[in-house]
Amino acid sequence: MAEEVSNKQVVLKNYVSGYPKESDMQIVTSSIKLHIPPDTQNAVLVKNLYLSCDPYMRGRMAENGAASYLSSFQPGEPLSGYGAVKILDSTHPNYKKGDLAWGFTGWEEYTLQVSPQLLIRIEQTDLPLSYYTGILGMTGLTAYAGFYEVCSPKKGEYVYVSAASGAVGQLVGQLAKLFGCYVVGSAGSKEKVDLLKNKFGFDEAFNYKEEPDLDAALKRYFPEGVDIYFENVGGKMLDAVLPNMRIRGRIAVCGMISQYNLDKPEGVHNLPNIIWKRLRLEGFIVSDSYHLYPKYLETVIPYIKQGKIVYVEDVAEGLESGPASLIGLFTGRNIGKQLVVVSRE
Amino acid sequence: MAEEVSNKQVVLKNYVSGYPKESDMQIVTSSIKLHIPPDTQNAVLVKNLYLSCDPYMRGRMAENGAASYLSSFQPGEPLSGYGAVKILDSTHPNYKKGDLAWGFTGWEEYTLQVSPQLLIRIEQTDLPLSYYTGILGMTGLTAYAGFYEVCSPKKGEYVYVSAASGAVGQLVGQLAKLFGCYVVGSAGSKEKVDLLKNKFGFDEAFNYKEEPDLDAALKRYFPEGVDIYFENVGGKMLDAVLPNMRIRGRIAVCGMISQYNLDKPEGVHNLPNIIWKRLRLEGFIVSDSYHLYPKYLETVIPYIKQGKIVYVEDVAEGLESGPASLIGLFTGRNIGKQLVVVSRE
Repeated sequence: MAEEVSNKQVVLKNYVSGYPKESDMQIVTSSIKLHIPPDTQNAVLVKNLYLSCDPYMRGRMAENGAASYLSSFQPGEPLSGYGAVKILDSTHPNYKKGDLAWGFTGWEEYTLQVSPQLLIRIEQTDLPLSYYTGILGMTGLTAYAGFYEVCSPKKGEYVYVSAASGAVGQLVGQLAKLFGCYVVGSAGSKEKVDLLKNKFGFDEAFNYKEEPDLDAALKRYFPEGVDIYFENVGGKMLDAVLPNMRIRGRIAVCGMISQYNLDKPEGVHNLPNIIWKRLRLEGFIVSDSYHLYPKYLETVIPYIKQGKIVYVEDVAEGLESGPASLIGLFTGRNIGKQLVVVSRE
Repeated sequence: MAEEVSNKQVVLKNYVSGYPKESDMQIVTSSIKLHIPPDTQNAVLVKNLYLSCDPYMRGRMAENGAASYLSSFQPGEPLSGYGAVKILDSTHPNYKKGDLAWGFTGWEEYTLQVSPQLLIRIEQTDLPLSYYTGILGMTGLTAYAGFYEVCSPKKGEYVYVSAASGAVGQLVGQLAKLFGCYVVGSAGSKEKVDLLKNKFGFDEAFNYKEEPDLDAALKRYFPEGVDIYFENVGGKMLDAVLPNMRIRGRIAVCGMISQYNLDKPEGVHNLPNIIWKRLRLEGFIVSDSYHLYPKYLETVIPYIKQGKIVYVEDVAEGLESGPASLIGLFTGRNIGKQLVVVSRE
């Protein structure tokens, strides 16, 4: 009979409204057998190595998660999200012990997955494994699909990225620069602004928290207006961008992190610009774009190896750091892609 | 020497803020020579027959018309807009005396046009000439381009049209029905709702003024949700529609008449649905679609003659009725396309 081991988990204590707090989650220790139960076909048992902290997870902490595109987390159960994992046992024909994969998994040390179709096998292992929680995984593909498929970019266009040092924003800006656009990003600290300008190669960047008048800031950085706005923030930021869009501008609506903790999202007033400027606003989610993933990897891996694309991670050590890391997204505590190391191997 | 005749005009008295009033305009009598001045090449002198009252004109009554897509009207000068006209004199190679045309002209009896490229010659005269202020002119092409080019319709989809008995809405609904969609419209009176159901053939219609809860009304008429929203209204209506959109729904943003008289447009809160539902919102204006006009006429004229598309006009007699007719758009006084007869020939 298989030996049971302890299995630390990050569990949702109660549904969240307003800003999430560390105390909305707790670390519990459960136990798990490291073998798949007899008669359980097409399952894998994984060791979770790296877990991804993503803003969309806030929606799943609410009781009415159904208003979002994913179901709610269940109080008393571990959170789930994207992660990079190692297969410890498999009854699924595509996986064998020792394989690496990324995809949906639990916020715990070990997870028995009966839906391994939510995993993608990791073939290329000469880049850090943690990258599969970000630039080589969900957020990377989000940036790629959002920029190329939704923004309809043209060389020389003016591109604005909000939350620009985050997991998605940092890559969108670099893809836009490589494509030949003029790129300005905003973020919430001097350190992040420096990163945007000096590490990610944005043409300009500004700290939105130091701009009392966002409209004036946008007019300063985009005297000709904005062709493409990559929207990660929503609310007042979107309201300020709309009148600064150019004719036939495009807004790729990737996220609205400023709105996720409000009981009622802020009102956005400047929508008549959609008519006057013939704007297109388009929402998208990465799960519609997985067919692009092989092409994306072929594109991005050489860029990373050649140093043409750089990537900044904010790495928290240990599952215990999960709750603080996750809620830190909403105060902008993270610098770059936030992830949690559960185990390095 | 050419004889001068009197030329009644509808003149803007002062820039408008808030709801426009009849007293913001006045009728004045000027004079004009009915021949083109010597040495004025490529001009036409037209007799204005029918003038179109359109919501977008409100933007041009404001001092900051530049925020809109057209320049402001000038106080002391006649309004301008779409109309059907007869050529009285021409130094333009495309026009001769007696020709009929539609396009941009003045709110007056006679207009000297030095930019006749803003006119389109009327070839087909076996339908009422007044139709060229609407279904055979700008609003018709708006409905056609908006529905076919922006909405990306599929047979069997659920279509919602606001301001549905208006010049654009009535045609969008009929085009959508002919295409094989399920169509519900809203309007502001019982009489208009009856028109939608009994004359225009909408599947269902409701009076938004009698619905204390627009969200509940939309859920009643669209238990499966809305695939296509043809937006003519904005504000609270858009806010109610957003959570009722289906995955990958499209919102063709044609107008936001509820917002044009507000100093600051209302806040719209439910924009995060753009992400969750992967919605596309797209603004458009008819001037980008004139290349479709010949094809549009080929489509719509047979439908009109066969009675498959019907058209309801609200006809005001005499240039003096212009101010009341124009402001009546914003209180919903008109039933169908509002136009003003200056002269029947």
